[in-house]
Amino acid sequence: MSSSDIFIGETIGTALLTLLGGGVCAAVTLKSSKARNAGWLAITFGWGFAVLIAAYVSAPLSGAHLNPAVTVGLAIKNGDWSDVPVYFAGQLLGAMLGAVLMWVTYYGQFAAHLSDPEHIRDAKLGPEDPHPHDQAGPVLGVFSTGPEIRNIVQNLATEIIGTAVLVLAILTQGLQDDGKGLGVIGVLITSFVVVGIGLSLGGPTGYAINPVRDLGPRIVHSLLPLPNKGGSDWGYSWIPVVGPLAGAALAGGLYNLAFA
Amino acid sequence: MSSSDIFIGETIGTALLTLLGGGVCAAVTLKSSKARNAGWLAITFGWGFAVLIAAYVSAPLSGAHLNPAVTVGLAIKNGDWSDVPVYFAGQLLGAMLGAVLMWVTYYGQFAAHLSDPEHIRDAKLGPEDPHPHDQAGPVLGVFSTGPEIRNIVQNLATEIIGTAVLVLAILTQGLQDDGKGLGVIGVLITSFVVVGIGLSLGGPTGYAINPVRDLGPRIVHSLLPLPNKGGSDWGYSWIPVVGPLAGAALAGGLYNLAFA
Amino acid sequence: MSSSDIFIGETIGTALLTLLGGGVCAAVTLKSSKARNAGWLAITFGWGFAVLIAAYVSAPLSGAHLNPAVTVGLAIKNGDWSDVPVYFAGQLLGAMLGAVLMWVTYYGQFAAHLSDPEHIRDAKLGPEDPHPHDQAGPVLGVFSTGPEIRNIVQNLATEIIGTAVLVLAILTQGLQDDGKGLGVIGVLITSFVVVGIGLSLGGPTGYAINPVRDLGPRIVHSLLPLPNKGGSDWGYSWIPVVGPLAGAALAGGLYNLAFA
Amino acid sequence: MSSSDIFIGETIGTALLTLLGGGVCAAVTLKSSKARNAGWLAITFGWGFAVLIAAYVSAPLSGAHLNPAVTVGLAIKNGDWSDVPVYFAGQLLGAMLGAVLMWVTYYGQFAAHLSDPEHIRDAKLGPEDPHPHDQAGPVLGVFSTGPEIRNIVQNLATEIIGTAVLVLAILTQGLQDDGKGLGVIGVLITSFVVVGIGLSLGGPTGYAINPVRDLGPRIVHSLLPLPNKGGSDWGYSWIPVVGPLAGAALAGGLYNLAFA
Repeated sequence: MSSSDIFIGETIGTALLTLLGGGVCAAVTLKSSKARNAGWLAITFGWGFAVLIAAYVSAPLSGAHLNPAVTVGLAIKNGDWSDVPVYFAGQLLGAMLGAVLMWVTYYGQFAAHLSDPEHIRDAKLGPEDPHPHDQAGPVLGVFSTGPEIRNIVQNLATEIIGTAVLVLAILTQGLQDDGKGLGVIGVLITSFVVVGIGLSLGGPTGYAINPVRDLGPRIVHSLLPLPNKGGSDWGYSWIPVVGPLAGAALAGGLYNLAFA
Repeated sequence: MSSSDIFIGETIGTALLTLLGGGVCAAVTLKSSKARNAGWLAITFGWGFAVLIAAYVSAPLSGAHLNPAVTVGLAIKNGDWSDVPVYFAGQLLGAMLGAVLMWVTYYGQFAAHLSDPEHIRDAKLGPEDPHPHDQAGPVLGVFSTGPEIRNIVQNLATEIIGTAVLVLAILTQGLQDDGKGLGVIGVLITSFVVVGIGLSLGGPTGYAINPVRDLGPRIVHSLLPLPNKGGSDWGYSWIPVVGPLAGAALAGGLYNLAFA
Repeated sequence: MSSSDIFIGETIGTALLTLLGGGVCAAVTLKSSKARNAGWLAITFGWGFAVLIAAYVSAPLSGAHLNPAVTVGLAIKNGDWSDVPVYFAGQLLGAMLGAVLMWVTYYGQFAAHLSDPEHIRDAKLGPEDPHPHDQAGPVLGVFSTGPEIRNIVQNLATEIIGTAVLVLAILTQGLQDDGKGLGVIGVLITSFVVVGIGLSLGGPTGYAINPVRDLGPRIVHSLLPLPNKGGSDWGYSWIPVVGPLAGAALAGGLYNLAFA
Repeated sequence: MSSSDIFIGETIGTALLTLLGGGVCAAVTLKSSKARNAGWLAITFGWGFAVLIAAYVSAPLSGAHLNPAVTVGLAIKNGDWSDVPVYFAGQLLGAMLGAVLMWVTYYGQFAAHLSDPEHIRDAKLGPEDPHPHDQAGPVLGVFSTGPEIRNIVQNLATEIIGTAVLVLAILTQGLQDDGKGLGVIGVLITSFVVVGIGLSLGGPTGYAINPVRDLGPRIVHSLLPLPNKGGSDWGYSWIPVVGPLAGAALAGGLYNLAFA
């Protein structure tokens, strides 16, 4: 693959990922959305099929990493880091573009939600949960992840474990596809793997398991002119970057030890 | 494919699409349905599997476009517009036939719902949502889409983005199937793509992403002798036609730029 | 396939079908079940995966018809009715065996539910729905289908349409598998087809779409010594037999006209 | 496969199974989880995709049994018991490791839940269900299964039937894969088989259908220093061991009779 194909593929693919992944969070969260309160199952399937669509479209150009953790895991497995910077650049740019497209798609819903007295009151008082200071505001939650309980060690551990599961599943995929790369069935299975990680490991932190999926939309959240949007929670922002990269390293090491 | 196979395949397939897609909306919306209030996840999976069934049956005859946006996207990709009118004709006829079959299937449920005092009161007062004038009535919603917030620019943008994602996924599918056309796995994946678009991008407008899926049933709604059915919202009707066609053109152009 | 393989395969497969399909109805309906009130989506996916398991296991022996409507549709397509009686016999026997196994699995739940004062009161007064006389009792609903609104013409039409969609999908499957029969992917897709029919067309009658799936468990319901079980609604019982067979004939005819 | 590959594969795979399977129970059950009250459908899909991920990763090393019942069923089919002890050892070790990882992932949620006055009161009084003494405490339910109604005969029957369905589906899989082993599609279908068994047969006992999935996490529950955790219900613990092994023997025998 040429560097330009990688860059274009990752940009388009990761834009689709955060457009659709952010989209389902907006759909379930914001006022005046037909999907409001559709629940956690809707969010996890929405993110899974976001991966399906994004990977399906970008696979022919870039192999559909869409996630620096996947790129790192594959680099450890293959011992080749030469394309890593191009992958990272396309992924971060795409993640930001997708968040902007998501905001355009839900423009009226953001406006209705942010001007709602109930939201404004909640944004000031925090949700009825006994740990309001531990919660990202609901609108930031459409863009980026946040922990239910703020605990650096647990939050890091959760992101490391979730990402290690994801990357291990992707690395061992090659063993079953006879090295033919990410085939159509592999893409489908990977999307269900992501649904499963969301259902099983997403409860504490909202499963970033992908540094740019969290950082890109967070940057966009901080830049968009949204009234009453609340802070972008930069104090937490390093955890969904460091945790997934550490999880990828762990999975890459485990793969080379046990499967290679 | 012969023109007659295309016409018959698209008519049967699109009739299945609106029978099943309208059916899940009726099932979740109307009184005296076992699926009442089954929620947004039921609607999105119902539409996804409507695509699965419709495409699976019609693929051998017509290639299963079932959607003028898909037909336009493929025409841009292939540079061949000769069969487009036949596809359009079968699609619109099928979409109307399917809506009639859906009405037959839910005949008693429509009667019970439309004669219910609660429905009649809501139809006059609008739903408890603070924007009642922005809402299509619940019975029109079984046939066609309507925005939660009426905003021409946002509604068009949402339909353009949703359809562009759909058509891009279908156009790039060819790259992974080695030109063998819409294989069995491809049909399955496309159905999950449609579930994903519904979950992620359906909140604002109900994701028509298909001109005939919206226009055909709307015509049928305007013709059926249903008491208290309310208007057919013709003022909105051009958006789910123009938006998807523009989205298809966008996706076709992007495909030719980045993937061809 | 030998007659004995067909008989054994259909008996095992259809027993799995009504064990699992009846099981999800019991799980969602009966008191003291962990799945109580899990909703319509659980029921439709439960029946879909019941088809998946039943077809997956029985396909090597009998081709996994599991449904007289499928047997009739294939006989019309292939012009060969010689094995039809063996298929029917295995299917009816299996459907009864499966209902008994389902009852064994949920033995305590049936006992708890049937002895509950709330159930006994509801069984006498009918549910809070304004049409109590139109409703099958909740325990019969674990075994067999019943209409929300009792209307012979609509109920028949709904079963005919639902079954025609199912049989058409199965008959056209052969066109995509190049005559290799019901492959592994075909089984998976058929299970999602059944989920889709349930979501979209199941609201009015509970989608029997299979004569023995309804008749076999109804016979078992009438024979089991369950206190307060209510009647077996034999007045309705011919509709889920005649409707699916008529739908299969319709689909077979349409197949021979348009696809053969 | 070498014994060391089998042991490592089963340990990693079964650890993934109970990490993810226990994880979805924690996510839906514990306080301060984003997935709280996501419902039975979330639990069944969560366990199904736990099987998908665990089997997908471990298949290249050990063939992904992950369950002594599967190992026994395959040993009966193949008439070869030589590797059974290695499988069992890896499976039990992995099931314990996964439960520990699950606890790490949900560390803060366990702490919040166990210190909640509502939980402490419920732990003393039992849930509002009329059979409190029949219920495992909610925190034990994150680790291991427990019956809704305590009845040795029914509980054993339910586990035997559920496991027999699972093992029969896995044994007959070989007939469709032409002996190529557990292919990628087979793994996906098996995961939906597990979802289906959960939906249809999980209501009475919570479907262990796997001795180590229940015993391993129960041992971990008894060892972890969790305040107010309640007992580990050792009185019930033999049923989800004996029932699944008996179900596997039944399925193996049926396979050799009807399919071999």
